[in-house]
Amino acid sequence: DFMAGLENDIKPAYGSKEEDVERYMRNGILMWGSPVEETLKSGSLLVNQVRNSDKTPLVSVLLTGAVGSGKTALATRIAVDSGFPFLKICSPGNLVGFSESAKCQHLKKVFDDAYKSQLSCVVIDDIEKLIEYNPIGPRFSNIVTQAMMVLCKNLPPLGRRLLVIATSSNRDVIHEMGMDKSFDSHIHIKCLSNESEVMHALESLDAFTTEERSSIKRSLSGRKLWVGIKSLIRMVGTAEQAEDNMRVPTFIALLEDEGGMQ
Amino acid sequence: DFMAGLENDIKPAYGSKEEDVERYMRNGILMWGSPVEETLKSGSLLVNQVRNSDKTPLVSVLLTGAVGSGKTALATRIAVDSGFPFLKICSPGNLVGFSESAKCQHLKKVFDDAYKSQLSCVVIDDIEKLIEYNPIGPRFSNIVTQAMMVLCKNLPPLGRRLLVIATSSNRDVIHEMGMDKSFDSHIHIKCLSNESEVMHALESLDAFTTEERSSIKRSLSGRKLWVGIKSLIRMVGTAEQAEDNMRVPTFIALLEDEGGMQ
Amino acid sequence: DFMAGLENDIKPAYGSKEEDVERYMRNGILMWGSPVEETLKSGSLLVNQVRNSDKTPLVSVLLTGAVGSGKTALATRIAVDSGFPFLKICSPGNLVGFSESAKCQHLKKVFDDAYKSQLSCVVIDDIEKLIEYNPIGPRFSNIVTQAMMVLCKNLPPLGRRLLVIATSSNRDVIHEMGMDKSFDSHIHIKCLSNESEVMHALESLDAFTTEERSSIKRSLSGRKLWVGIKSLIRMVGTAEQAEDNMRVPTFIALLEDEGGMQ
Amino acid sequence: DFMAGLENDIKPAYGSKEEDVERYMRNGILMWGSPVEETLKSGSLLVNQVRNSDKTPLVSVLLTGAVGSGKTALATRIAVDSGFPFLKICSPGNLVGFSESAKCQHLKKVFDDAYKSQLSCVVIDDIEKLIEYNPIGPRFSNIVTQAMMVLCKNLPPLGRRLLVIATSSNRDVIHEMGMDKSFDSHIHIKCLSNESEVMHALESLDAFTTEERSSIKRSLSGRKLWVGIKSLIRMVGTAEQAEDNMRVPTFIALLEDEGGMQ
Amino acid sequence: DFMAGLENDIKPAYGSKEEDVERYMRNGILMWGSPVEETLKSGSLLVNQVRNSDKTPLVSVLLTGAVGSGKTALATRIAVDSGFPFLKICSPGNLVGFSESAKCQHLKKVFDDAYKSQLSCVVIDDIEKLIEYNPIGPRFSNIVTQAMMVLCKNLPPLGRRLLVIATSSNRDVIHEMGMDKSFDSHIHIKCLSNESEVMHALESLDAFTTEERSSIKRSLSGRKLWVGIKSLIRMVGTAEQAEDNMRVPTFIALLEDEGGMQ
Amino acid sequence: DFMAGLENDIKPAYGSKEEDVERYMRNGILMWGSPVEETLKSGSLLVNQVRNSDKTPLVSVLLTGAVGSGKTALATRIAVDSGFPFLKICSPGNLVGFSESAKCQHLKKVFDDAYKSQLSCVVIDDIEKLIEYNPIGPRFSNIVTQAMMVLCKNLPPLGRRLLVIATSSNRDVIHEMGMDKSFDSHIHIKCLSNESEVMHALESLDAFTTEERSSIKRSLSGRKLWVGIKSLIRMVGTAEQAEDNMRVPTFIALLEDEGGMQ
Ligand SMILES: Nc1ncnc2c1ncn2[C@@H]1O[C@H](COP(=O)(O)OP(=O)(O)OP(=O)(O)O)[C@@H](O)[C@H]1O
Ligand SMILES: Nc1ncnc2c1ncn2[C@@H]1O[C@H](COP(=O)(O)OP(=O)(O)OP(=O)(O)O)[C@@H](O)[C@H]1O
Ligand SMILES: Nc1ncnc2c1ncn2[C@@H]1O[C@H](COP(=O)(O)OP(=O)(O)OP(=O)(O)O)[C@@H](O)[C@H]1O
Ligand SMILES: Nc1ncnc2c1ncn2[C@@H]1O[C@H](COP(=O)(O)OP(=O)(O)OP(=O)(O)O)[C@@H](O)[C@H]1O
Ligand SMILES: Nc1ncnc2c1ncn2[C@@H]1O[C@H](COP(=O)(O)OP(=O)(O)OP(=O)(O)O)[C@@H](O)[C@H]1O
Ligand SMILES: Nc1ncnc2c1ncn2[C@@H]1O[C@H](COP(=O)(O)OP(=O)(O)OP(=O)(O)O)[C@@H](O)[C@H]1O
Ligand SMILES: [Mg+2]
Ligand SMILES: [Mg+2]
Ligand SMILES: [Mg+2]
Ligand SMILES: [Mg+2]
Ligand SMILES: [Mg+2]
Ligand SMILES: [Mg+2]
Repeated sequence: DFMAGLENDIKPAYGSKEEDVERYMRNGILMWGSPVEETLKSGSLLVNQVRNSDKTPLVSVLLTGAVGSGKTALATRIAVDSGFPFLKICSPGNLVGFSESAKCQHLKKVFDDAYKSQLSCVVIDDIEKLIEYNPIGPRFSNIVTQAMMVLCKNLPPLGRRLLVIATSSNRDVIHEMGMDKSFDSHIHIKCLSNESEVMHALESLDAFTTEERSSIKRSLSGRKLWVGIKSLIRMVGTAEQAEDNMRVPTFIALLEDEGGMQ
Repeated sequence: DFMAGLENDIKPAYGSKEEDVERYMRNGILMWGSPVEETLKSGSLLVNQVRNSDKTPLVSVLLTGAVGSGKTALATRIAVDSGFPFLKICSPGNLVGFSESAKCQHLKKVFDDAYKSQLSCVVIDDIEKLIEYNPIGPRFSNIVTQAMMVLCKNLPPLGRRLLVIATSSNRDVIHEMGMDKSFDSHIHIKCLSNESEVMHALESLDAFTTEERSSIKRSLSGRKLWVGIKSLIRMVGTAEQAEDNMRVPTFIALLEDEGGMQ
Repeated sequence: DFMAGLENDIKPAYGSKEEDVERYMRNGILMWGSPVEETLKSGSLLVNQVRNSDKTPLVSVLLTGAVGSGKTALATRIAVDSGFPFLKICSPGNLVGFSESAKCQHLKKVFDDAYKSQLSCVVIDDIEKLIEYNPIGPRFSNIVTQAMMVLCKNLPPLGRRLLVIATSSNRDVIHEMGMDKSFDSHIHIKCLSNESEVMHALESLDAFTTEERSSIKRSLSGRKLWVGIKSLIRMVGTAEQAEDNMRVPTFIALLEDEGGMQ
Repeated sequence: DFMAGLENDIKPAYGSKEEDVERYMRNGILMWGSPVEETLKSGSLLVNQVRNSDKTPLVSVLLTGAVGSGKTALATRIAVDSGFPFLKICSPGNLVGFSESAKCQHLKKVFDDAYKSQLSCVVIDDIEKLIEYNPIGPRFSNIVTQAMMVLCKNLPPLGRRLLVIATSSNRDVIHEMGMDKSFDSHIHIKCLSNESEVMHALESLDAFTTEERSSIKRSLSGRKLWVGIKSLIRMVGTAEQAEDNMRVPTFIALLEDEGGMQ
Repeated sequence: DFMAGLENDIKPAYGSKEEDVERYMRNGILMWGSPVEETLKSGSLLVNQVRNSDKTPLVSVLLTGAVGSGKTALATRIAVDSGFPFLKICSPGNLVGFSESAKCQHLKKVFDDAYKSQLSCVVIDDIEKLIEYNPIGPRFSNIVTQAMMVLCKNLPPLGRRLLVIATSSNRDVIHEMGMDKSFDSHIHIKCLSNESEVMHALESLDAFTTEERSSIKRSLSGRKLWVGIKSLIRMVGTAEQAEDNMRVPTFIALLEDEGGMQ
Repeated sequence: DFMAGLENDIKPAYGSKEEDVERYMRNGILMWGSPVEETLKSGSLLVNQVRNSDKTPLVSVLLTGAVGSGKTALATRIAVDSGFPFLKICSPGNLVGFSESAKCQHLKKVFDDAYKSQLSCVVIDDIEKLIEYNPIGPRFSNIVTQAMMVLCKNLPPLGRRLLVIATSSNRDVIHEMGMDKSFDSHIHIKCLSNESEVMHALESLDAFTTEERSSIKRSLSGRKLWVGIKSLIRMVGTAEQAEDNMRVPTFIALLEDEGGMQ
């Protein structure tokens, strides 16, 4: 159980409350395939670079991936697993109603707090929402964008070390703004892309009966799949409300409707 | 009588006054055809998902449809039928004169209030008006847009469950802004599209005399129709002011003028 | 005499002072032809719909027409003739120097006041000026536009009924902004378009001598005409300042110069 | 002497100080040709319309013309000649450093003051500067533009009469903004366009010696000319600083350089 | 020595301190060729027009020229040479951090102060910087632009005379904004454009040894040159830091690199 | 050791704390090839021009180069090596959350402080970040841009001398804004571009074992290289976290992935 381990391992000095952390990984991290393992391993190497290398006291990484691919949960997992004494997750949901300038001050405060700890991890979740990006225009808060970019490259004071993990579902915007130059490395979060990964996830979720899962397996076999773990879990939740004999068809229909299966 | 049922069923903890709810469904919900039934059934399934599924404590649905198709009344109906103890309808009419930032604060307050109840329903009526969308430019309040999008995806605290129902008459704008990614499901509200549905509605409304309705039926038969229930009721209201022998011709003329009949 | 009737008929509860009303119809309503009658009749039917129909407690109508066609005077006439106890005319001339947000508050106040009366009529004169529309850009106050659109569709509280009459000389802008969807019906105000209508107006105005009018009649006969009643009255006013033998030629020249005659 | 007449004729109730008026016509009004006479006569007719006609208590006129053609001086002359007890000249030079909104308040105050007098004249000099028009963009103050347009059409209270005279050197902008619809009539101020008009002006100015004027006359004869009276006076002023034998050549060169002669 | 003469000649009533004036002509005015003489003479004629002509109490002149061509120093020279009791130089360097509106107030104050003296000279240095012109957009402060344009044309009170000298290195912008219409005359400041002018300047500066100058002269002869005096002086300053045998080559290289020689 | 020398050499009067200076050159200045020497020598000549030349008390230089090429460290090195008693480094990291106008005030304060010392050096690091440049739009703070441009050209008071060093990774923006005209000279910072330079750097860093370096040397030989020193150091830091046998392949892969090797 991931939360049990969590409670024993870390005591964030000034940062996130445990309750928050749990919210961002509500359904845990299912090991549905090798992409999950690779992401966690890459994350772990960067954690070590921050902890060990004298040359680079600051390391920043950007997690990109489709909407619903599990970015927030994975960023949280890496951050929690670092065991760094300071951990803070900046989430747009906590900044609703903040003015642009209040958002900047908030970001600055988070980093200033992080600089007080010898080893810190800051998660900036959902960059597009943080900067209020809207493709019509396009519009966005440039001052929040700039504050974020500068903070992601700002060297901590001598003797302090910092890992920055950011997430985004819009690589194009990140690139057009030149924001990618503000990060040292990039990790792309994959969707589930074959029958075996989906079945693995459904089993881990204990979703559907064994018979239903067999039926689903048959429906999926040989089909192209592309669905994020978060979306998959939501479809399961919807399908489970249908009448007994409609649960599997509803699930399959949702996968097809939302373009997750061809 | 729908209001009678309403009064017995729900006691909104902090939310809408009953008077408000009645205004949004002034002419009730006429069961003029299968689209109405399907919409109410889809709504009911989402209500159950919120109530029952542990995996998805938040479900959001977007109701789209032509101007005057009955979006507001149907959203209100689904919300009221949920029987959730907290019910709040955010309507542009209540926010006239609010600054962009006051609108954000208002939205935040509505959701914060909702989070205090174990089961809540928030209706956001007429997204385009809420975000002050104007096709010239186009112009709109990006900060209200962002606040709305973030709140529609923000997980409630552990142990709380929330249904969000939003309405819009402009699917293109929703799509261009990527706002559709903020909602779990979409329901499209249909217009009345054949003689039988219109006659059904007129009868339920007790509009016109039996002879007049026969005459209308003859005029409509074999014609293509496309008219929202709200618009239809307005045309009835206007036609009824005409002199006796002009009531049916006025009604038919209105249907034709406004593109509802070909 | 229209003002005499006015004084006996209405006692606006909170609304316009009589002096104001007189200003908007300074030269009365001349019955120069059938378009005037039709406009007044359409207006009267909408007044009745508000007064009588339970289904539609709110009716809104947009009067469009060329600059100087008599929109303001006709809207005022319909509003005054309704005899509704509450009558308020929102005119740009009273809002000079108001900030965008003060204009919104003013509009809101007008409607809130209207909601206090069982039967109310609100006239919103010259929408383009109210929203500060400028074709260069184009520029306009979106927040005033939105406030106006929302208020024109906002259902009054249970038991209250409201007629909204708006005027505009720019149908294209109204359409491009989708503002036409905020109104239940449209009435287009015509210009005087033939010799008979112009002669009728001149006689009612008691303008020129009988001989001069004969001379004008001869000049106009067989010519295409297109002139608003307000513009016509102004041309009369100017022509009357010319020396005696120049009055008719000046009048004809003005008609020709301003494109009113071909 | 025009200022002498001025002092006897008018005592502006709340408006311009005499000193101001003199500044706007520093070099008097030279009767250099028929365009000057026609302009003054047209102005005089409008003055009479305001004074005499019951139908049109408000008359507005726009004076357009090239930069330096004498617009400000002629508007001032017409206003002064009206003999109306209230006279106010709104000049951009008096509004430097005013915010957009302060300019609106100032305009409103000017008209409110005018409404207190039975017969008033308001001059709005240099509309483009007042509205801060800049062709790059273009940029301008829309709220000042709107305030001006509304005030120019706003009917004075019953019993009050008002003449509005505005000037502009950019007819295109006026037209593109639809501002021309805010004025009842237009007068175009001409430049001096032939040798006789220029010589008439030079004589009235008592500029150059008789011999020099003969020499100038020879240089100009048969050439196309197009020069505003203000520009002409400036060129005279410059040429007079040259050494004696260079005065005429300098004057001719200036006329040629600035496109005033071909 | 130009500063010596300066101290004896003028005692600016409210304006620039002498120290300032010296900064703007740090390296004096070298008479490197006829363009310098012509500029000073044109300036002197305008000074006389202000001092002598009754018809034109206000004269404004715009000095344009390439970056580094000596505009600021020449404007200062003309202003100082006027001997007018009031002299004020508005320089962007003194307005850093001023808001747009503070800049307008400053300009207004400068002209108001000038109006208090019978004979005044105001220098507005570097218009593009003053109006914060940026070719990307383009962006600029329109309110400062407007304030400047209005003040440059605003007639001083009766009895006061004013010379306005402005400088700019971007004639295109000036023209596109129609700002050229705000000035009575234009003077274009030339760059040094042949070997003889450059050698003249180097000698006056006492730059390089006689042998080095001979060497430079040989290198320049027959080459096209185009370099501003300020740039030339900077190149001398740089070349003088090189090791002895590198001084001439460094100087020639700088001239070539910066496009000053072909 | 460069910091040791630093501590003995300078005592910044009002400016940077030593700790800051160290942060900007965390990994020292490795002499990896002739471009480093040339940059330091050019910087030293400009330092001398400021110190020695009477004609040019202000010298400004712009350092451009790719992201991660070592601009900040080299600017700091030149500034520190000047030994000027006043030294101040303006870094975006210290201005997060500052409003545009606060940034202007800050810049002004820095220069005002510099003007108090006889010999000063101001470093403006990362112009694009300072002016909040975003290529989408593009957007940037024009008032900060203008303040910076004006201050970079503003002559210090008589008797004071100032060296301004600015850095930028976006030459195109600098050029489009005409900001290059605000600097007297330009120095372009090169990336490491051949095997020998990289090996030199790795040896100086004492990175990898001797065997690993031999292996790397073989991999690089004959390949095109283009990598900034900062990026190179980061890649070393990452590679060192890999398991022993993966260190060299990881390093080579990073070089290839980021386009540094072909
Ligand atoms: N392997 C996994 N990786 C990520 N999330 C997982 C995994 N297994 C289960 N989950 C669950 O899936 C959900 C992922 O949702 P998450 O919010 O992280 O997605 P997201 O990509 O951030 O979505 P959005 O694009 O909407 O922000 C969480 O509830 C998480 O507990
Ligand atoms: N089946 C039905 N569905 C929806 N509304 C119905 C139905 N039957 C009757 N009505 C009545 O029709 C009207 C629908 O109006 P409503 O305001 O919901 O339309 P709308 O689509 O929201 O309009 P708008 O686009 O103007 O916001 C209400 O008065 C409602 O009581
Ligand atoms: N039949 C009529 N219809 C309208 N106005 C009439 C009629 N007969 C006379 N009038 C007079 O004509 C004038 C119409 O002016 P009004 O201000 O209503 O025009 P308008 O179209 O609103 O002008 P604008 O486009 O400038 O706002 C009023 O003075 C009114 O008294
Ligand atoms: N017939 C005339 N008409 C106008 N101005 C005349 C005439 N005769 C002499 N003048 C003088 O010519 C000058 C006209 O200047 P004025 O400021 O009116 O020009 P303008 O067109 O308003 O210029 P600008 O376009 O710069 O505003 C005044 O000094 C005025 O006294
Ligand atoms: N004939 C001359 N004309 C102008 N300046 C001269 C002349 N001779 C020497 N100088 C010196 O050359 C320098 C000219 O610099 P100035 O600041 O006036 O140039 P500028 O064109 O205003 O530059 P910028 O375009 O950067 O504003 C001054 O130091 C001045 O003393
Ligand atoms: N020769 C060198 N030149 C510059 N920096 C060097 C050199 N040798 C080692 N370094 C180190 O390399 C790093 C250069 O980083 P620096 O921040 O200066 O790069 P930058 O070009 O400013 O990066 P960015 O584009 O991200 O601002 C510093 O840690 C510095 O100590
Ligand atoms: Mg997420
Ligand atoms: Mg609705
Ligand atoms: Mg009107
Ligand atoms: Mg003028
Ligand atoms: Mg200069
Ligand atoms: Mg840097």
